[in-house]
Amino acid sequence: MTIDARLQTPVAPALLEIQEPVRAKLARVPDELWRIVKADEMIIAAANAHLRGMKGKMFRPTLLLLASELEGAADGRECALAAVAELVHLASVVHDDCVDHSNVRRGQPTINALFSHQIAVIMGDYLYSKALAELVRLGDLEPLRAFTAASNDMTLGEMRQLSSYDALSFTEGDYWQLIHAKTASLLGAACEVGALCGAAEHRAAMRRYGEQLGMAFQVADDLLDYTEVESVIGKPSGNDLREHKVTLPLIAALPQMSRAQRATVDGLFANPTPHDTEIADVVAIVTECGGIEYARSRGEEFAEQADAALQPVPASAARQSLADALTYVINRRS
Amino acid sequence: MTIDARLQTPVAPALLEIQEPVRAKLARVPDELWRIVKADEMIIAAANAHLRGMKGKMFRPTLLLLASELEGAADGRECALAAVAELVHLASVVHDDCVDHSNVRRGQPTINALFSHQIAVIMGDYLYSKALAELVRLGDLEPLRAFTAASNDMTLGEMRQLSSYDALSFTEGDYWQLIHAKTASLLGAACEVGALCGAAEHRAAMRRYGEQLGMAFQVADDLLDYTEVESVIGKPSGNDLREHKVTLPLIAALPQMSRAQRATVDGLFANPTPHDTEIADVVAIVTECGGIEYARSRGEEFAEQADAALQPVPASAARQSLADALTYVINRRS
Repeated sequence: MTIDARLQTPVAPALLEIQEPVRAKLARVPDELWRIVKADEMIIAAANAHLRGMKGKMFRPTLLLLASELEGAADGRECALAAVAELVHLASVVHDDCVDHSNVRRGQPTINALFSHQIAVIMGDYLYSKALAELVRLGDLEPLRAFTAASNDMTLGEMRQLSSYDALSFTEGDYWQLIHAKTASLLGAACEVGALCGAAEHRAAMRRYGEQLGMAFQVADDLLDYTEVESVIGKPSGNDLREHKVTLPLIAALPQMSRAQRATVDGLFANPTPHDTEIADVVAIVTECGGIEYARSRGEEFAEQADAALQPVPASAARQSLADALTYVINRRS
Repeated sequence: MTIDARLQTPVAPALLEIQEPVRAKLARVPDELWRIVKADEMIIAAANAHLRGMKGKMFRPTLLLLASELEGAADGRECALAAVAELVHLASVVHDDCVDHSNVRRGQPTINALFSHQIAVIMGDYLYSKALAELVRLGDLEPLRAFTAASNDMTLGEMRQLSSYDALSFTEGDYWQLIHAKTASLLGAACEVGALCGAAEHRAAMRRYGEQLGMAFQVADDLLDYTEVESVIGKPSGNDLREHKVTLPLIAALPQMSRAQRATVDGLFANPTPHDTEIADVVAIVTECGGIEYARSRGEEFAEQADAALQPVPASAARQSLADALTYVINRRS
């Protein structure tokens, strides 16, 4: 299996198969993306080059392109819109890393680490404003509507996360609201916008598919922190616990804990710099109290909901890939 | 003269007169603005309340509303679009303060000082994404085109400012490019969008008027740092020099300086925390070398260019106010 070199490194075999029906178009997306954000300013060019080197999985463009081919050929805007979906994601990533003071993402230094915190603030603004200018250039209000709504949700989600002060009082309802805003919303918009490029009758179904897949995706992502070791994930396992971030496995396990187990958890959250052994202890407690199992089963439910949204869509290679994407999402290891 | 209490405090008498033809509509703009950004999230509500308390001059809404009445009654979108213009400005202000680590603006604490640097990053994103969502709701691509182009320019301008490393090599050309991007671009967009609400034949003229007025506005603003004392401006005079920010008066004065004068300037720029007397010395040198005079005359030239752009516009109260705004801009003291 050959594939554009820019997409080669970080893509799992399962994702490569999912991308098969749209591979030629997907290979054009990076060029569209860098066309949109190209600038003569040295510092932007340098930041762009760095971001280009980070080689994301291009998951949002993949879904958008697949959704655009559910009723035959798309209308020609799909590669530019796929690039916009990735750009909106990238802009939010740059600001998230800046807010979280993250120095590393997927094994690469972040913009704030490599340049400065200030550059990261403005670079995020730059990427987002370029994405919007491209949407205006394309001259259709509907993709603008979908992407600006997703951006609103994403900023609301980030704000909620910043303003929550008592981590362990974070409820399952809070968690669903948060991951919908931060992850599901943009994946829903990407799939909806894909449908707008040639399968508009599936617009609502694709939005639903993307949102449910996004929920499954984030649940799986949060599970990885409890189940995968550093060499696979590219960041330390248990990192969420280290940062006192409460996700579904812990939320589900908390009510099942003995007093002693709960005391261990409270100890970790009272310690600003938890030790690796404390983290390993809490991971073991969460596992023992059924947190991992519960999160897996909720993730699978979201994937089933997403699959149900695909039912009205006629059989095609693109539809099959969207179905396969659900399996990929709940089974992924990185 | 009565006026809505929310607009009362910070507005100079000259600006109140300029606002006269659109006073009733201008009084509705804050309600439109807070309708657009309203949120149940406690932290956003708190940040909104703080920003509301800051009571800006509403200069961009004023110009947009005036431009919308150059050919009789506007089409009904003008108050919402005036609120969007102020929001785009506010979003950029929040990120600028965050990048500059400014703790005070117009005598009030900034979002980053009062909340946190992180909240300021996301709050800026929130305000901007809400402004865009409102533009999408209004359903016209042309205001979107004008405002997204201005946002692109503003981020480019901020990026240029961040990446310039040798302050004293900043040329007059660099300065014009910078203030066009950071100030003139959005004022041009506000005036253009105003024209789109009922005087579309003046769209290009209003854009030109707004841009030239914006250049005059920024030159005057940079002059204030050299000419006004703390009690009037609400921030320390000579603040730009203290922060090693090079603006037109200094750029114009540099080639006229004696070797000894230049050494004094170099000394200030080599000192990370310049003393008040060093700043006073450089202000005196810049004045003596004609920097103030030169900047005044260039500001007046921009005002004349803006006035020339008004020539094709028929006589009306709104047109007269736009002409008066030019006098206000070059004579303002705060």
